[in-house]
Amino acid sequence: MEEANNQQNRLSATRVGIDTYQESVAYMRDDCLICRAEGFGVQTRVEIRSGERSIIARLNVVESDAGMLSPGHIGLSKVAWERLALTDGREVNVSHPAWVNSLSYVRRKIFDQPLTREQFGAIVLDIQAGRYTDVHIASFLTACANRLDVDEVAHLTRAMVDVGTCLTWPDSGVVVDKHCIGGLPGNRTTPILVSIAAAAGLTMPKTSSRSITSPAGTADTMEVLTRVDLDMDRIRSVVQQEGACLAWGGNASLSPVDDILIRVEKAMDLDSEGQLVASVMSKKIAAGSTHILIDIPVGPTAKVRTRSSAEALKKVFEQVGQCLGVVVCPVITDGSQPIGRGIGPLFEAEDVLAVLQNQDDAPADLRDRGVMLAGLILEMAGRSEVGHGQSLARELLTSGAAWHKFKAICEAQGGLRKLPRVRYRRRLEAPVSGSVKAIDNRKLASLAKLAGAPNAKAAGVRLLVKVGDKVAKGNALLELCAETKGELRYAESYLKQVPDMIQLQ
Amino acid sequence: MEEANNQQNRLSATRVGIDTYQESVAYMRDDCLICRAEGFGVQTRVEIRSGERSIIARLNVVESDAGMLSPGHIGLSKVAWERLALTDGREVNVSHPAWVNSLSYVRRKIFDQPLTREQFGAIVLDIQAGRYTDVHIASFLTACANRLDVDEVAHLTRAMVDVGTCLTWPDSGVVVDKHCIGGLPGNRTTPILVSIAAAAGLTMPKTSSRSITSPAGTADTMEVLTRVDLDMDRIRSVVQQEGACLAWGGNASLSPVDDILIRVEKAMDLDSEGQLVASVMSKKIAAGSTHILIDIPVGPTAKVRTRSSAEALKKVFEQVGQCLGVVVCPVITDGSQPIGRGIGPLFEAEDVLAVLQNQDDAPADLRDRGVMLAGLILEMAGRSEVGHGQSLARELLTSGAAWHKFKAICEAQGGLRKLPRVRYRRRLEAPVSGSVKAIDNRKLASLAKLAGAPNAKAAGVRLLVKVGDKVAKGNALLELCAETKGELRYAESYLKQVPDMIQLQ
Repeated sequence: MEEANNQQNRLSATRVGIDTYQESVAYMRDDCLICRAEGFGVQTRVEIRSGERSIIARLNVVESDAGMLSPGHIGLSKVAWERLALTDGREVNVSHPAWVNSLSYVRRKIFDQPLTREQFGAIVLDIQAGRYTDVHIASFLTACANRLDVDEVAHLTRAMVDVGTCLTWPDSGVVVDKHCIGGLPGNRTTPILVSIAAAAGLTMPKTSSRSITSPAGTADTMEVLTRVDLDMDRIRSVVQQEGACLAWGGNASLSPVDDILIRVEKAMDLDSEGQLVASVMSKKIAAGSTHILIDIPVGPTAKVRTRSSAEALKKVFEQVGQCLGVVVCPVITDGSQPIGRGIGPLFEAEDVLAVLQNQDDAPADLRDRGVMLAGLILEMAGRSEVGHGQSLARELLTSGAAWHKFKAICEAQGGLRKLPRVRYRRRLEAPVSGSVKAIDNRKLASLAKLAGAPNAKAAGVRLLVKVGDKVAKGNALLELCAETKGELRYAESYLKQVPDMIQLQ
Repeated sequence: MEEANNQQNRLSATRVGIDTYQESVAYMRDDCLICRAEGFGVQTRVEIRSGERSIIARLNVVESDAGMLSPGHIGLSKVAWERLALTDGREVNVSHPAWVNSLSYVRRKIFDQPLTREQFGAIVLDIQAGRYTDVHIASFLTACANRLDVDEVAHLTRAMVDVGTCLTWPDSGVVVDKHCIGGLPGNRTTPILVSIAAAAGLTMPKTSSRSITSPAGTADTMEVLTRVDLDMDRIRSVVQQEGACLAWGGNASLSPVDDILIRVEKAMDLDSEGQLVASVMSKKIAAGSTHILIDIPVGPTAKVRTRSSAEALKKVFEQVGQCLGVVVCPVITDGSQPIGRGIGPLFEAEDVLAVLQNQDDAPADLRDRGVMLAGLILEMAGRSEVGHGQSLARELLTSGAAWHKFKAICEAQGGLRKLPRVRYRRRLEAPVSGSVKAIDNRKLASLAKLAGAPNAKAAGVRLLVKVGDKVAKGNALLELCAETKGELRYAESYLKQVPDMIQLQ
């Protein structure tokens, strides 16, 4: 039995190598005297302190004879270990966490009272500090869903901005940005419109995310072509030199609470308008943007399903933008089918290059969407008269100015990379003649992931047909690519199980 | 790398000896091909199937070199292992869980729509089947808080009843029951009023819970005196013989979802009226009760803080009772200080015995409260005229009839036990003369737990003074008891750190 010097509840820390993602978990033995004394049980929240640092962790209890923990030790999951910056055997202090005051504001919201900016600030600060478990966060998100007025969305946005890094671009008056709600597979307009905007002399310091659940995020795709994991100093110098960048946002710590909230929202499969707007706006404002284009694709498999909900969302964006003193230009677009041909980093990069280089076989839908959105950006920033943006954008593309600028951005970020070669490929052939009736985007995305995307860059799917195309028996419908034989075979067997990925009639 | 026979996503199960309480957790290696193929990541929900049984578990990822799991194996937390009834090395199948349909009803509630009985039924069934993670449950609870009308509370109650065991007492017309909201320490009226009610010829098959966070639950206290972990057959025969029982409810599986919801509610520190009423009523109705007394203590450290919220709660109980066709009699009582002297199983049992045996030094407040509530039960069941219940209850107590019945119940449950002896004790003496100004109940409860309650039966605190008593320097204020020297010392040092547990002036 442990000694009475456990008065101070000190235990030696053991790293147990379990990844519990963002939620800190601590492991204590079932015979641990401290547990009993303090009344800690499984799922209790405990505060663990090491020097200046402290975290709140959820407790799991380990059987003493499981061999996982020695007496007098406390186990910590990966994120807990990292947050406390521990080394093996370091002593930590374990206690009940101090009462988290802001939870009473969550309670107010549950009981239908509007929250002030300060109250949102307190909640967001506590979430950032790890004082909210996933259960608390779920409660907060649910309490806010359908319950935030425009002012509250603005307050929440500001609170999320305040708790992370903020970028400023002091040499630029207008800083443009773009965001797309509800990704369609392959909809890689960002590199195209950033190049056009920068070619037109606008400042567009675009940071993007890696894939969360899709076969490729913009950052994954750009990483095929150049370095994206730039630190802030490098981002600034690229933007200073070229007026724009196409970097990964992960280093910048913009609106860090947004990532935490999104993770729990995904687990709940809940998205609410207010949260969505706060999420997007907080990242854009933290990035220092003054003029923001919001692309809202509407369609049966897009995030926004109906025209009317798109209009409602558009309105909230405009009103919140006004509260926050930024120009927001939401545009409703067609989200009924994917854009482009490639699914997976390399193949989406190929589509982007084809458009920028004005190749004959460039996917026209991607080109047209990119030009249309770029045109709106030019108008929003005052670079074109209203109604004339698109023709200027097209001009900048067809003249090669956009391609020239894209190359320059990539060079500034570390060099334009040679495309990797596809190592293993397998074509899916049409079993009969007919025309392409439907393409199942979700299954295509799964297929691409099984083949290794996005971790493997030269993995995924090249679609060789579009809906409406006529095919003869034996024609190739798609090309499945992978970096290893094993992954190709794995994806192939999925393909065998799911023959109706591309439906013919 | 695992073979392509992982097409079927089969892995060997390993029991990892980690207690994650009620939420199933699965552990997979970070190099596991199935994870990647299926897109499983940390915190993903996975469905794990073994023969006929399946569960939904949350995924944690383990570093391959942590030595915790062999290749081709999946680790399962205690509850996951038990739910699947596994043996070491048994193969299980791992896949994405089917979409949980009832989550769309939770969404409806979030967007302010009333739910039907069927919809509550679907939600409760899915919770029972383990298809809701804690995050989903938190969302459901938050969505319902402050949002259920009386009909919905009744629907939810019925749904919770339907999903567990139901008891019936076919030989009895009137079956009485009692519940106390917001436990005050030491408020052990149940054994007293059950004995009185049964002595009056009423049927009162009382099951109680063990302590969750307090130094003793009714079941812990009763277990000092007799067996409480009776199976349903034994409970029936005791009730048939004596008209009542004082058993532990844990074997009966009444309203099992209630336990799941309560656990998450505690983690959220959220309690809402509708949920509370559904929780209590579901257990009572599942127990087959027809006439239910609800004791609502009101006070600054009770669960219900104000008279007006007590009145509101009273009303909801009455209305929901009416919907459900049971007689509910809520009574508002004084919750401003604890009742009785003992804190911890043995000492609370001593208080109960003292009252039942009509001892001179029996705690008067406990006796009076027990008699008052018993009187209301007698009136509610029609055994007394309104206004005359209390005098009949007092008569049954002072005549010894209640004590006689109590002994008979204990005998029927397995025998009336001899009280354990206190092994280690230490008195806290008054440091000065004065009168007792205040007693800190929460700290007393912590002290009792540090001394070992409720796991150690002969551990806890005997309060030797009450607020208002005059004491001389050196007089004993309380007696701290423990079953082992180590626990006594542990509790003593807490006492040293917290000198103002009993304030004198």
